[in-house]
Amino acid sequence: MNNNELLVSGERLWQSLMEMGKIGATEKGGCNRLALTQLDKQARDLFCQWCEAVGCTISVDKMGNIFARREGLDNSLGAVCTGSHLDTQPTGGKFDGVFGVLSGVEVLRTLHDLNIQTRAPIEVSVWTNEEGSRFQPAMQGSGVYVGRFNLEEEWAKTDVDGHTVKQALEDIGYLGDQEIGSRHIQAFFEAHIEQGPILEDEDKQIGVVRLGQGIRWYNVTVTGRESHAGSTPMHLRADALASAANIIAYIEDIAQAHKPNGLATTGFMQVYPNSRNTIPGTVTFSVDLRNPDAEVLASMDQMFNEYCEQIATQRQVNVEVDHFWYFAPVTFSASDNVKVAAQKLGYSHMDIFAGAGHDACYMADIVPSGMVFTPCKDGISHNEIEFTTPEQCEAGCNVLLHAMLEVAEVVE
Amino acid sequence: MNNNELLVSGERLWQSLMEMGKIGATEKGGCNRLALTQLDKQARDLFCQWCEAVGCTISVDKMGNIFARREGLDNSLGAVCTGSHLDTQPTGGKFDGVFGVLSGVEVLRTLHDLNIQTRAPIEVSVWTNEEGSRFQPAMQGSGVYVGRFNLEEEWAKTDVDGHTVKQALEDIGYLGDQEIGSRHIQAFFEAHIEQGPILEDEDKQIGVVRLGQGIRWYNVTVTGRESHAGSTPMHLRADALASAANIIAYIEDIAQAHKPNGLATTGFMQVYPNSRNTIPGTVTFSVDLRNPDAEVLASMDQMFNEYCEQIATQRQVNVEVDHFWYFAPVTFSASDNVKVAAQKLGYSHMDIFAGAGHDACYMADIVPSGMVFTPCKDGISHNEIEFTTPEQCEAGCNVLLHAMLEVAEVVE
Repeated sequence: MNNNELLVSGERLWQSLMEMGKIGATEKGGCNRLALTQLDKQARDLFCQWCEAVGCTISVDKMGNIFARREGLDNSLGAVCTGSHLDTQPTGGKFDGVFGVLSGVEVLRTLHDLNIQTRAPIEVSVWTNEEGSRFQPAMQGSGVYVGRFNLEEEWAKTDVDGHTVKQALEDIGYLGDQEIGSRHIQAFFEAHIEQGPILEDEDKQIGVVRLGQGIRWYNVTVTGRESHAGSTPMHLRADALASAANIIAYIEDIAQAHKPNGLATTGFMQVYPNSRNTIPGTVTFSVDLRNPDAEVLASMDQMFNEYCEQIATQRQVNVEVDHFWYFAPVTFSASDNVKVAAQKLGYSHMDIFAGAGHDACYMADIVPSGMVFTPCKDGISHNEIEFTTPEQCEAGCNVLLHAMLEVAEVVE
Repeated sequence: MNNNELLVSGERLWQSLMEMGKIGATEKGGCNRLALTQLDKQARDLFCQWCEAVGCTISVDKMGNIFARREGLDNSLGAVCTGSHLDTQPTGGKFDGVFGVLSGVEVLRTLHDLNIQTRAPIEVSVWTNEEGSRFQPAMQGSGVYVGRFNLEEEWAKTDVDGHTVKQALEDIGYLGDQEIGSRHIQAFFEAHIEQGPILEDEDKQIGVVRLGQGIRWYNVTVTGRESHAGSTPMHLRADALASAANIIAYIEDIAQAHKPNGLATTGFMQVYPNSRNTIPGTVTFSVDLRNPDAEVLASMDQMFNEYCEQIATQRQVNVEVDHFWYFAPVTFSASDNVKVAAQKLGYSHMDIFAGAGHDACYMADIVPSGMVFTPCKDGISHNEIEFTTPEQCEAGCNVLLHAMLEVAEVVE
């Protein structure tokens, strides 16, 4: 058999995506499957069941990362790994993360059904808490795996109700015993929906991801003074929310000042005491700044910090900026394998950079890594209406399969 | 006895304030005693117990408003009434509302101890849900009493957990059987802390409240489009929170454009889905605009509506403005009784307007009404550090007593 004729089943991949999408399904067609909840457990269980059905063995590490292994001819070689995540945003879609994991499953099924032996072993991983929605930071499982984060510290992180990661792992039965970072891996690939509008705009089937953009995450707390909305003259106020509103409006200016790739977002906000006729005394909110160029991102950081200081002085409020996470731009050194696969299969493709953080961005720390992007409708993600067509999924999965086989080698 | 020598006990009043302040006491010295909670019930029970101890009879109406009555010589006359509220903001103080109610109790105790008979009966009322914090609107009990609101509609209002007012009244045993508006009242007075900095600034002991300022309350809902914070270019976003931030920043400009008395506040805000790396799709927030002049307030309303339309167009988001409450400026026609009492007792005093809404503002619809303001420290209210000195409380209570006796008449 000519390798080029080795193709996945797009239909089977689509059916798996739809079946997984039932776990935590929302009314609007999306998913609410927060990390380490009972719904996440159901999704993990289904993944393990599917992998075992095609002869894989399952391992779980101390961070709850799952590895499904298909042995090769020479198991002394490092595994060629693919993976992504099964957790979603609270109003997430059916594709973000899940498409990457189930493309891995489809790769396993294809190799199994066609009885293909690879020289190197193949692994498919599910990384814990990629979304960073219930627990922060995002990409927590892969971050711990590669040594960016300390296991004990991440175990101790809590959700808004005070539950720890470690307890949540225990509760769903995914606190594994395998040591962190102990697997023998030679390359990592991740298939993912683009989560942006560029491939659709350029009418390309495949994005060859050359770079992961830099990200800076902040928690901002503005502390003013609570007082009565009806009897406190404007000039005597220390209004935490009005101050926060100025900062949130300003981060858009920061993005505009760093065109074309500067991004700035506040997604999370809490107001205290949050009562209609009390001037807010405390407001906490998130700030997310991104740019593919580390120097440009540093300039955005500087503008942001300076403005916070300025608001604190002007408005006589306290502005505490906790810059708790910096993710430097990443180069994907195995992206040529992705490009070759796309060319070989005859898919239209273009080089692109990843706007979001992905588990592959961390895996790139320790092994040559590459990402395959597929288009997604209107560029919309982290939204219940997130959508990629069956044909687009199939193309992405075929590219993933062949990129992996480029490294793992088919034994004729 | 010369009437001028008829004085309340400032010490007893203070002790009562401190005892009531223990119910729902917060660590920072304030109170969290939301309307119709078990804590509100405890406060109400204590009030009833204190009033019955000095020979009063208690009635409760269908809105949970409480009336403690001390008979006069001629009970065919309308009662001279005082009252306020016992509910607080979630991080409220020990004085807002409570000072007015307990000044009424102190008036009853003083008349009782000195065995003074009045020609007209005296009543002290506790109005349900003045704060508008757990249930909206504010001043709900007095508003129903005077016919501004419909009883059935207010019964059906819900808190954020979906509990209705009627159920909450039943749960704490204060769903009374007395018909709304059925009491025979000839005048209403309310003692209250200023909740603003003017009396302290002008070094006056008493504020003679001539006017209650106008208030407009809005609920604003901005609907944009949820999408991924890392891969949605700035020009393709419909960011509900950034849009809301513009509006919140702008209402300060509205207040500045209507100096010296224009006030604008956003106290409440909710962001959806409220996740760090999702551009918010929906944001709801409150807007509170105030001015003592009805025409000026109408101009503020117009600026506000125009700007919301502008933002909707510019940012391609939907901005829904629900202007659910308008409170027209109020004139206090019994304020001369307050002025005479302050003069007679030799307290320094000044005319002032009420910045906040008060139950007396509604009672002014149906009977001549007046308000007595006392200073409060740094003008701070709706805050746990809210403070009025024992001497200031005593002075305010003495003025209340004498204003009431001006109308009720002491039988010599």
